[in-house]
Amino acid sequence: MATDNAAGLAGVIAGQTAIATVGKQGKGLTYRGYSIHDLAEHSNFEEVAYLLIYGRLPKQAELLEYRTKLRGQRGLPAALKSVLEQIPRSTHPMDVMRTGCSMLGTLEPEGPGHDQFAVANRLTACFSGMLLYWHHFHAGGKRIDTETDDDTTAGHFLHLLHGKKPDELHRRAIDVSLILYAEHEFNASTFTARTITSTLPDFFSAVTGAIGALRGPLHGGANEAVMELIEKFPTPDAAERGVLEMIAAKKLIMGFGHRVYKISDPRSDVIKAWSKKLAEAHGDERLYRVSERIEQVMRREKNLFPNLDFYSASAYHLCGIPTAMFTPLFVVSRITGWAAHIIEQRADNRLIRPNADYIGPEPRPFVPIANR
Amino acid sequence: MATDNAAGLAGVIAGQTAIATVGKQGKGLTYRGYSIHDLAEHSNFEEVAYLLIYGRLPKQAELLEYRTKLRGQRGLPAALKSVLEQIPRSTHPMDVMRTGCSMLGTLEPEGPGHDQFAVANRLTACFSGMLLYWHHFHAGGKRIDTETDDDTTAGHFLHLLHGKKPDELHRRAIDVSLILYAEHEFNASTFTARTITSTLPDFFSAVTGAIGALRGPLHGGANEAVMELIEKFPTPDAAERGVLEMIAAKKLIMGFGHRVYKISDPRSDVIKAWSKKLAEAHGDERLYRVSERIEQVMRREKNLFPNLDFYSASAYHLCGIPTAMFTPLFVVSRITGWAAHIIEQRADNRLIRPNADYIGPEPRPFVPIANR
Repeated sequence: MATDNAAGLAGVIAGQTAIATVGKQGKGLTYRGYSIHDLAEHSNFEEVAYLLIYGRLPKQAELLEYRTKLRGQRGLPAALKSVLEQIPRSTHPMDVMRTGCSMLGTLEPEGPGHDQFAVANRLTACFSGMLLYWHHFHAGGKRIDTETDDDTTAGHFLHLLHGKKPDELHRRAIDVSLILYAEHEFNASTFTARTITSTLPDFFSAVTGAIGALRGPLHGGANEAVMELIEKFPTPDAAERGVLEMIAAKKLIMGFGHRVYKISDPRSDVIKAWSKKLAEAHGDERLYRVSERIEQVMRREKNLFPNLDFYSASAYHLCGIPTAMFTPLFVVSRITGWAAHIIEQRADNRLIRPNADYIGPEPRPFVPIANR
Repeated sequence: MATDNAAGLAGVIAGQTAIATVGKQGKGLTYRGYSIHDLAEHSNFEEVAYLLIYGRLPKQAELLEYRTKLRGQRGLPAALKSVLEQIPRSTHPMDVMRTGCSMLGTLEPEGPGHDQFAVANRLTACFSGMLLYWHHFHAGGKRIDTETDDDTTAGHFLHLLHGKKPDELHRRAIDVSLILYAEHEFNASTFTARTITSTLPDFFSAVTGAIGALRGPLHGGANEAVMELIEKFPTPDAAERGVLEMIAAKKLIMGFGHRVYKISDPRSDVIKAWSKKLAEAHGDERLYRVSERIEQVMRREKNLFPNLDFYSASAYHLCGIPTAMFTPLFVVSRITGWAAHIIEQRADNRLIRPNADYIGPEPRPFVPIANR
């Protein structure tokens, strides 16, 4: 483990933001001043995306126009499809997103007539299609049409994934999940996007880097790790035994605790309720009950609370989403938070360039190769 | 401008490193304890790459083996070539590098049998070919063979660029430049690579993000901006007038000053001497004399010293390198520093996740869309 206090910049203020508060009094989360509970209850993903990127809730006509704009930008250029076809079937889907995003930046570069808002909207509109074009090409040899007439990002994603319009329960579950995952202050991927942005490259460079950061199991990859954990257990009792063994063996259990939240993750209650609702609707409560038991064990044994990733796993699974798409779906949502931060960083930019504490060798004379 | 002190993490210690010291007593630079002056004078790029990645100078047999390894990994997979052909001719070459790196990560993913050292070496070996395959395909309709028998990275790059073995003066100038650009502690691209690495994704994710950060004009893109400045001036007097006008108009003049160096950039003297030597050899001293005059004006008027990027521009130009390839050539070198930092971050990892100073709206009630 890193021994100096500075490692990981824990507790270090790295800049200002007007986008989100995280962990105030140990638990709160607001987007532009609105509580995550209100947004998850009363709003929808496109409204939240608009709020994050444009800074305020849209009026009715603005929301309509925004939805229409997104719907119109779901098609993929031929060269991008060709690249997606070249990416092997065995590739980690996050690497598909990373490569697709970078490639799109060469085909539709930011510039005159294609400003930062246009790029943000384009990426918000087409990440689902990018992932699912690649998926269906390799899984079933199909070149799907990535344009659907679904009004919502959640509906569009499920439609492309399953090849038919989703029912409203699943659609709304994913819609709420996209709201919960949209923004989270200076998390590692967003901070990556801001650090890249601070040298003033194009928009795609920042998003491509952020996808790479989100990919790791200590960040977005955690929801996939949770699924791998819970699906192993046939019953809550088996889960309790299994997790106690893992704790005894000092194994890391994903989906619990958080760098910034100290008391609870306000998003967890929301997605937990959805996981329960989906389990009841499906008449298949195994994963929910397994998850609930693991939550109890972790509170009792480790005094840790579940974070957003924990109940997202069972909820996604019940919506028919393959585990390998959990983190890409996070991208479909978080692109909006990243975009807001890239725009904010540019508006008041300063190069992000910290210092290091040097612990290497003292200055020493060069030794010619014959004398080594 | 950002108003809080934390912006940009200036002066903030973000972690430990044993790789380089930068700016000790305002000017020093060492790689693993060896001074940059010794390395530029007595060493070569492959030796420095080995030093950075493996932590010590190679013995004769190790250097030979390392060079042989790099030489054997210059070929590009067919799918990568196909992607490079799909990237438009008008694309910024840094976007080619970013996309090519990400794509290679899907074709040759890090994993069993292809560990982090193997990935580092593969990228060090093939970035030149990636750039120049794309370049020649679009500039001249040629599908070049990216494998050459040149012993050195500098020779290989120039050989692929010009289609023939370079003379020794140019080769050694680029070799020295690659040494100077190889590593620089927690600069923005390296810090990006470490932040991405801290979530524990694959190696390619970190490098792809770093390329995006290097692309910006406040970082690697600066050497291209210098070239655009100096090539405008036919004489030193014209340069003096032009730069004085820019200063009066408060325009930013690239290639001067540095976040970490306060007195001088130790790399500048080295590349300045090479710029002079190349100018004399070519019997074309215009750019060198223009650069020298701008240096004098900037010292006199702004008390600023040239950094590495400033004289690199004229040196690269005299080696026949197109301006748009200046920053990609920086990638060819800096991949070694990034690799060393990725390996170091993994060995003692802690998630890099700072906090933000919230300056946005206070908590407020959600307003239904009909009432906005």
